Amino acid sequence: MKQKITIKTIAKELGVSTSTVSKALKDSHEIGKETKDKIQAFANHYNYKPNSLALQLRNQKTKVIGVILPKIVHHFFSTVIMGIESYANEKGYHIMVCFSNEDYQKEVETLRVLSNGSVDGLIVSIANETLENKDFSHFIDLVEEDIPLVLFDRVVDDILCDKIVVDDVGAGYKATKYLIDIGCQKIGLITTPDHVSVGALRRLGYEKALIESYIKTDKNLIIKIDEKQDIKKQIEQLFEQNIDGVFAVNEIYAANAMRIAKEKGLNIPNDISIIGFTDGLISEYSSPSITTIAQHGFTMGRQAVELLIERIENEQEVFNPKKIVISSDLKLRESTKPSS
Amino acid sequence: MKQKITIKTIAKELGVSTSTVSKALKDSHEIGKETKDKIQAFANHYNYKPNSLALQLRNQKTKVIGVILPKIVHHFFSTVIMGIESYANEKGYHIMVCFSNEDYQKEVETLRVLSNGSVDGLIVSIANETLENKDFSHFIDLVEEDIPLVLFDRVVDDILCDKIVVDDVGAGYKATKYLIDIGCQKIGLITTPDHVSVGALRRLGYEKALIESYIKTDKNLIIKIDEKQDIKKQIEQLFEQNIDGVFAVNEIYAANAMRIAKEKGLNIPNDISIIGFTDGLISEYSSPSITTIAQHGFTMGRQAVELLIERIENEQEVFNPKKIVISSDLKLRESTKPSS
Repeated sequence: MKQKITIKTIAKELGVSTSTVSKALKDSHEIGKETKDKIQAFANHYNYKPNSLALQLRNQKTKVIGVILPKIVHHFFSTVIMGIESYANEKGYHIMVCFSNEDYQKEVETLRVLSNGSVDGLIVSIANETLENKDFSHFIDLVEEDIPLVLFDRVVDDILCDKIVVDDVGAGYKATKYLIDIGCQKIGLITTPDHVSVGALRRLGYEKALIESYIKTDKNLIIKIDEKQDIKKQIEQLFEQNIDGVFAVNEIYAANAMRIAKEKGLNIPNDISIIGFTDGLISEYSSPSITTIAQHGFTMGRQAVELLIERIENEQEVFNPKKIVISSDLKLRESTKPSS
Repeated sequence: MKQKITIKTIAKELGVSTSTVSKALKDSHEIGKETKDKIQAFANHYNYKPNSLALQLRNQKTKVIGVILPKIVHHFFSTVIMGIESYANEKGYHIMVCFSNEDYQKEVETLRVLSNGSVDGLIVSIANETLENKDFSHFIDLVEEDIPLVLFDRVVDDILCDKIVVDDVGAGYKATKYLIDIGCQKIGLITTPDHVSVGALRRLGYEKALIESYIKTDKNLIIKIDEKQDIKKQIEQLFEQNIDGVFAVNEIYAANAMRIAKEKGLNIPNDISIIGFTDGLISEYSSPSITTIAQHGFTMGRQAVELLIERIENEQEVFNPKKIVISSDLKLRESTKPSS
């Protein structure tokens, strides 16, 4: 690398002290306007950049927020990032996004890299493998070191920190209740394995709606998708059960269910009604378009970063972790019969 | 924050020198096994973490690569990240992703934050507003400071650095040629304003294919989308021209064209054939599914980070910027007639 211009060089060139240069560059009122202008002009001319690492060592604030997401291609997480960005920018923070790829080891490492002084705080949604392992010590260590942390969407009780979650039980209930109300009698559920907390909660909502309507839960109607295997093949089994309604806990499962229904010559929504989760582009551009649970990812992101910045900027306060529950809406489209 | 344990504390507690502790923690062969074990056990017990900022100040290598993308929700960019991740992980690098949101000012700031010592190098696709402004001084400064930079997809000649691009002219040609070959006679082009380099190049390919087949380019058949306005309304104008083929330079434009065609009662592909760009989930899950140009984002990402790491690790070499052109494929699906 080329030699960079430093505060020392500037001081020497202009015959002032380094502390004068430093103060002038911070626009301090202690330095007279003329001197300040001269120093700033000189620094600009030679493209002076403060050595951010040295600065950080001194005050340990980076004004950067780290975000760790489990997946790269995912509409819901993208909307959460947009929410985080919108509030962070207003408050003068930058965000850096890293991905765990649902992998425990990668999550541990990423957490280590980011918590080593690069960021002031972290916003994380936990990787599936970590949820399956139930080893949360990397998060617990972080909390013990008082590094501000907010978990969202996929959270666990073992980690004592602020959390933002969707009302997943309520969402599962809302979707299933709607299917019952429009006359569906055999409603299939396409969900995740039990260790994925959001899938398990949405299933609770599904069961709650069935019980309320005196419909017995039929285990054959519940498919827990193993994403390492062919998703479509697993969903095809469900269609052997003569179902007339489907609630899928994400967009990809819903789109696959729709494709299978079409291949079987079923009319959507007359023969079968389908509800998905996550109001993404697939749901919007499919035909028929897919009725879905909208999770308000943007709002979640904004709230998450709001809590985090509050934590970062009020270090001294007594720590009472908050949990904010965001309710979700059913967005009616063409894949379900209209309510009568 | 709680008091962190330092090398000094460890040295004092164990009655050894700080340099012994430092070497032991780096697993140096200069220190005997017994001492090393003792020091490492002590450090682990008290959850010692090296102060990465101090370390970085010393060796100026972070093993982190910064990536700046123009958009958050975008399938192509997501696949590029996956490609970057795959090779970076193999080489022991972490990646941090930031977003310019197509905004010039945000791009300038993000570049400043990342280039201040947080990363060893940068991979960037330029924001639309920057391309429109034609002010690339923030990139040129970076290159002058010898900070390794690789541009991909949206690149400009003014910046002297490594570049990875899709053969956009070739892709536009391939798509249009296919439409001509299956018998389309009035082919509409849905593209970006001219300042977006990739749109302009794909248009060149479109025109090249028409000229070769002795078809006169008709300006009324070319729509340049202003994304700040209603996209669908702008595309609707095109359908007043009795077109029988459409080439759209991205997935969203193609999905909108398909929706309009359906609303007008046109049969796809018999009345009109549609080709999009970017092999994303919308193209895959639409019905009919959309024939598209696959850009091989994964390959682009891998190649970009390969070039970057080469630059980072061989600082002393003479700098000859490389430009790698990745060719793209036409992925045939249901929205186009089969070739005869």
